[in-house]
Amino acid sequence: MGNTFGHLFRVTTFGESHGGGVGVVIDGCPPRLEISVEEIQWELDRRRPGQSKITTPRKEADSCEILSGIFEGKTLGTPISILVRNKDTRPQDYDEMQQKYRPSHADATYDAKYGIRNWQGGGRSSARETIGRVAAGAIAKKILHQVAGVEVVAYVKRIKDIEGVVDPSSVTLEQVESNIVRCPDPECADRMIELIEQIGRQGDSVGGVVECVTRNVPRGLGSPVFDKLEADLAKAVMSLPATKGFEIGSGFAGTLMTGSEHNDEYYTDENGEIRTVTNRSGGVQGGISNGENIILRIAFKPTATIRKEQKTVTNAGEETLLAAKGRHDPCVLPRAVPMVEAMVALVLCDHLLRHQGQCSVLS
Amino acid sequence: MGNTFGHLFRVTTFGESHGGGVGVVIDGCPPRLEISVEEIQWELDRRRPGQSKITTPRKEADSCEILSGIFEGKTLGTPISILVRNKDTRPQDYDEMQQKYRPSHADATYDAKYGIRNWQGGGRSSARETIGRVAAGAIAKKILHQVAGVEVVAYVKRIKDIEGVVDPSSVTLEQVESNIVRCPDPECADRMIELIEQIGRQGDSVGGVVECVTRNVPRGLGSPVFDKLEADLAKAVMSLPATKGFEIGSGFAGTLMTGSEHNDEYYTDENGEIRTVTNRSGGVQGGISNGENIILRIAFKPTATIRKEQKTVTNAGEETLLAAKGRHDPCVLPRAVPMVEAMVALVLCDHLLRHQGQCSVLS
Amino acid sequence: MGNTFGHLFRVTTFGESHGGGVGVVIDGCPPRLEISVEEIQWELDRRRPGQSKITTPRKEADSCEILSGIFEGKTLGTPISILVRNKDTRPQDYDEMQQKYRPSHADATYDAKYGIRNWQGGGRSSARETIGRVAAGAIAKKILHQVAGVEVVAYVKRIKDIEGVVDPSSVTLEQVESNIVRCPDPECADRMIELIEQIGRQGDSVGGVVECVTRNVPRGLGSPVFDKLEADLAKAVMSLPATKGFEIGSGFAGTLMTGSEHNDEYYTDENGEIRTVTNRSGGVQGGISNGENIILRIAFKPTATIRKEQKTVTNAGEETLLAAKGRHDPCVLPRAVPMVEAMVALVLCDHLLRHQGQCSVLS
Amino acid sequence: MGNTFGHLFRVTTFGESHGGGVGVVIDGCPPRLEISVEEIQWELDRRRPGQSKITTPRKEADSCEILSGIFEGKTLGTPISILVRNKDTRPQDYDEMQQKYRPSHADATYDAKYGIRNWQGGGRSSARETIGRVAAGAIAKKILHQVAGVEVVAYVKRIKDIEGVVDPSSVTLEQVESNIVRCPDPECADRMIELIEQIGRQGDSVGGVVECVTRNVPRGLGSPVFDKLEADLAKAVMSLPATKGFEIGSGFAGTLMTGSEHNDEYYTDENGEIRTVTNRSGGVQGGISNGENIILRIAFKPTATIRKEQKTVTNAGEETLLAAKGRHDPCVLPRAVPMVEAMVALVLCDHLLRHQGQCSVLS
Repeated sequence: MGNTFGHLFRVTTFGESHGGGVGVVIDGCPPRLEISVEEIQWELDRRRPGQSKITTPRKEADSCEILSGIFEGKTLGTPISILVRNKDTRPQDYDEMQQKYRPSHADATYDAKYGIRNWQGGGRSSARETIGRVAAGAIAKKILHQVAGVEVVAYVKRIKDIEGVVDPSSVTLEQVESNIVRCPDPECADRMIELIEQIGRQGDSVGGVVECVTRNVPRGLGSPVFDKLEADLAKAVMSLPATKGFEIGSGFAGTLMTGSEHNDEYYTDENGEIRTVTNRSGGVQGGISNGENIILRIAFKPTATIRKEQKTVTNAGEETLLAAKGRHDPCVLPRAVPMVEAMVALVLCDHLLRHQGQCSVLS
Repeated sequence: MGNTFGHLFRVTTFGESHGGGVGVVIDGCPPRLEISVEEIQWELDRRRPGQSKITTPRKEADSCEILSGIFEGKTLGTPISILVRNKDTRPQDYDEMQQKYRPSHADATYDAKYGIRNWQGGGRSSARETIGRVAAGAIAKKILHQVAGVEVVAYVKRIKDIEGVVDPSSVTLEQVESNIVRCPDPECADRMIELIEQIGRQGDSVGGVVECVTRNVPRGLGSPVFDKLEADLAKAVMSLPATKGFEIGSGFAGTLMTGSEHNDEYYTDENGEIRTVTNRSGGVQGGISNGENIILRIAFKPTATIRKEQKTVTNAGEETLLAAKGRHDPCVLPRAVPMVEAMVALVLCDHLLRHQGQCSVLS
Repeated sequence: MGNTFGHLFRVTTFGESHGGGVGVVIDGCPPRLEISVEEIQWELDRRRPGQSKITTPRKEADSCEILSGIFEGKTLGTPISILVRNKDTRPQDYDEMQQKYRPSHADATYDAKYGIRNWQGGGRSSARETIGRVAAGAIAKKILHQVAGVEVVAYVKRIKDIEGVVDPSSVTLEQVESNIVRCPDPECADRMIELIEQIGRQGDSVGGVVECVTRNVPRGLGSPVFDKLEADLAKAVMSLPATKGFEIGSGFAGTLMTGSEHNDEYYTDENGEIRTVTNRSGGVQGGISNGENIILRIAFKPTATIRKEQKTVTNAGEETLLAAKGRHDPCVLPRAVPMVEAMVALVLCDHLLRHQGQCSVLS
Repeated sequence: MGNTFGHLFRVTTFGESHGGGVGVVIDGCPPRLEISVEEIQWELDRRRPGQSKITTPRKEADSCEILSGIFEGKTLGTPISILVRNKDTRPQDYDEMQQKYRPSHADATYDAKYGIRNWQGGGRSSARETIGRVAAGAIAKKILHQVAGVEVVAYVKRIKDIEGVVDPSSVTLEQVESNIVRCPDPECADRMIELIEQIGRQGDSVGGVVECVTRNVPRGLGSPVFDKLEADLAKAVMSLPATKGFEIGSGFAGTLMTGSEHNDEYYTDENGEIRTVTNRSGGVQGGISNGENIILRIAFKPTATIRKEQKTVTNAGEETLLAAKGRHDPCVLPRAVPMVEAMVALVLCDHLLRHQGQCSVLS
């Protein structure tokens, strides 16, 4: 256990970075959804390595195969299994890491927990593991869009100290995809790309903040008290590799305001809908969506695996030095954008079905 | 569903702020743990209203009764049920709120989700709901301490812009409990108390940041990829009322560093243990505890219910004004400290049992 | 874990036979269901001890208190907690059983598993534990009836070798409740009562078979492959005390037929509904309800605790004799009838919500 | 949901009989277990079609590929994914069944539930789905055997009215595998084979009873009250295709005895172990294993798909006749034997880990 996410729309991922492949089983998908392999592949292409000069040069087409659950272009309601083979593996790059623990990586903790580790790569702690999440997220997004016109749009908000100016209420997928760093502020994007290239040349890495907006969320999603929407969203994105922080709405900055400044006053709009003037709540109140945009920010640390030499120890506890070989992203954020969107979509889709299950049988 | 937390050490809370009472059922507790009602009550007293001049004056002794699962002072391994009656309720204080939605509160979203609401108080969205969590947390803490000497210590780090100086590696429960705001920096605590009193007199409220350190955590806790330790910790604390942000280790600030600055280099200590020089990881790497202190920070927004008049609407959508009656905390943080500790203990105890279950049967 | 049942309509029971009380928390109940404490109490009265001369004389009114989740006569969608206090306890009756294990009872296995046991009664293995199930079942039944007119009717089909003649398609609750043994074949019921009284006078006990029919079940309930409807029904009733066997439809007898004899041929009825001519499937095909009556039979062994002297051992392993004191049912079946109905209702209600959740969002 | 089984040792199966393939993901497997693909394949070979003259002639090698979770011959503690491709599919055999519902099969109920169906075969209701269960069961068996010497042996006890004489306490796998019907009573096996061949020639089918004994079960497995061991075993085997009944220990026959006849008296054996003289309990008391052999019997109905012509309807409700084409088993029992063993092993392995998790952390 630990590799399954969701209650009704339920996703189980499998696979190491080196081995037969990685993939996902999606259980509980509503039947009769039209979905093509191309729609899933399109999201995987946003995530795949080697997509630009600022990502790892590992060459993986990451072509997915749908093994089950879809028939004549429609979901059957049975488990959907999707497989992506590992192709461009170079276990020899990891020879040294069989003994030497990468600082701030998962090598040492996997050994501590399991007493064994697939050292020919990052194993389950590799970002390759997120392939299954992104594939499942493509399906979740489609359901959300079809049922309620939901749009999930994530983007790079900040790389190190370079922060873009983005309006969450209007930002589009096209704007996000218009540059390789996925920051919809074009001028800022150029500087981010330059920084990542420069840092990469130094054998070092950088982190930053991904922001995610979800629009047209139905009211009523979320299951207090433990499965509050923000709690499940926090878990979802904090389960992605390299995350160190999570905010919804006003986040940490909101703690500097008084209640009278922070509260979102209500009004009734032209359609008779109850709305809020401001959105410091970030679309969720009391653990339940209120129909306003859901706004999240996620902190991604700088990539742990770097070419710069660092002090470390071997699995036998001997002190040594390591300058990591292999092909690693100097910055994970451009590829993290589709991962964040996927996790948000998985949470919302699950809660959509849960809400339907509990609250729609009695009229 | 939504009111159960944990997989092996499994907690289900129940109860509204007005009604028969609130409580918890703990399923999966290890048998033969010595635990007294006083130990549980001690934690509840840290959480209860009316404990000081800066908390709500609602007078609740919050005396707990153990209904099952404990026999002759020891746990039976069967469900432990604990009940706290609601005593000092004043439904008349909520008369106005039957129609008028409190801004940034859960009134409107509960109505949207369920089509019905216990309007005689906050219902499940009241902080009273956390009584069950704190009671269960008392038991989880005892297990963790008995098995591995684990210490969970939370404290108020910041109120609005007043931030204390605290050393997580040495701070003690006694220091935390030495003042009513639960900030172990005494000079700072005085200013915090003064601010809360002043804001309270104005009918307004403030928020801030709770920090939590857990020491002596066994290596190997956490279940990648979805149930990574930081992911479950994030969910746990983000399910508490009024939370808007979560950080582990370096958090958002860590995104301003490069990888070579951020990585925690390894060394071997005098006992032959593999340790890290720094702890930007916050005690978790790759979703698994590494034996270093687990350091969390949680943002709590200013209390939503305030006496100051605000614009809002009724449940019929009519625009109106509301100056909330009732007895509310001008700042939730002092009482949030035991809640945060409880949620952290629940996560760690559950993962302790899960790790034991999966990883200890084969020698 | 182990004390929670169901996925969306989720029931957690707690309590030992001796101690503060027994009860249940129901999470995930649809909001706005009208339900009164009397409706729940009515089912508990069918289950309570001392209701007739053929049940245990333990005198328990089993009055239930609703602690949460219901407001002004309607469910809130939040956890419903129901408590029944233990009143007429006689721990002294169990003095001898503190050391001596009752043959075929749970005393020895609880000691083996937990290393501790509430020996002042049956603890969690007492039939008192089923109070929470029956209370929750009352709510599940009401939902099922309101949504689809579902009727769940169980009855005593056989006591030892005395078997009643009952038509599942027409049997009514009134017929079941018309006599104290709950066998709707009146002539047979008299002989059953006589047998139970006679066996009870001998300090011995008897078992038998409960049959349960559920009518007006919506098509489409059940979640292959593991949560097939018959699988969840089997688990549900086999979790009741004293059960040794389960059948659906043709059961074991069906194995004596050929496929051409056993198959239920289809036809289209006057309303254009696809129906089966026979119902050897028992209302479920491929793990999914087909709209025909669901027919189950459950074997209950003779009560383990008897006054007749038997060979046994103490918890120290010393061989000894035991003639159990205390007030025990010479036959559990009359009181098992509402328990079976409750468990069947819990399964169906959970699957109703699950089906709604998965299969109704896409039109 | 519905396609995952178990709590700590957690199995998710996927795949339809026609499509990319079938398989399983096993999450929560203890790390460092030595397991080879041959050990898994050996169990799959016992299950595969075309293995003898009395099974379906569909030719499937059912060669399995391990995609993840095993490295250098040992489990990693991460999800183990196993895939078997579908090879010898003949969708044309099912052309007629696209419209015509097979009596007592899942065609109609899948349509009712999902509104769509992979009609080119049995889809998820095909026995092919059990490949994933059997593969996972092979691993569960190995863990159980390694940890406690547990042996799970199932066999055909009865085909229609031909019943074998078998001693559960001594029957061996070799005896079971010594003939193609898997009945360890050789004389009886010959008559069973003859009957199956004869019935198959008539285009008809037969059912029967599989019995399963598990020896050397550790005391203390099972989690009352809902996850009693017999309840989870009942669910496990009743989730297999074609099952109609379940018994443990004395089963339905036990209801004909009095309590004094039925109770298993205790004694202390030469090793000081508390044992029972008889085993009518079937190895479980109060939902917890008592160390005696666990004895189960499962009723399998005659195969629904037969060549004999039967009355049925089309999916449009028109009455028609159907003589099923395709390659179907005239009797599922010989191939059901490894399926039953697998499901029993999955339950026991899960409860072994659960027991370890809850009851071994406090000394």
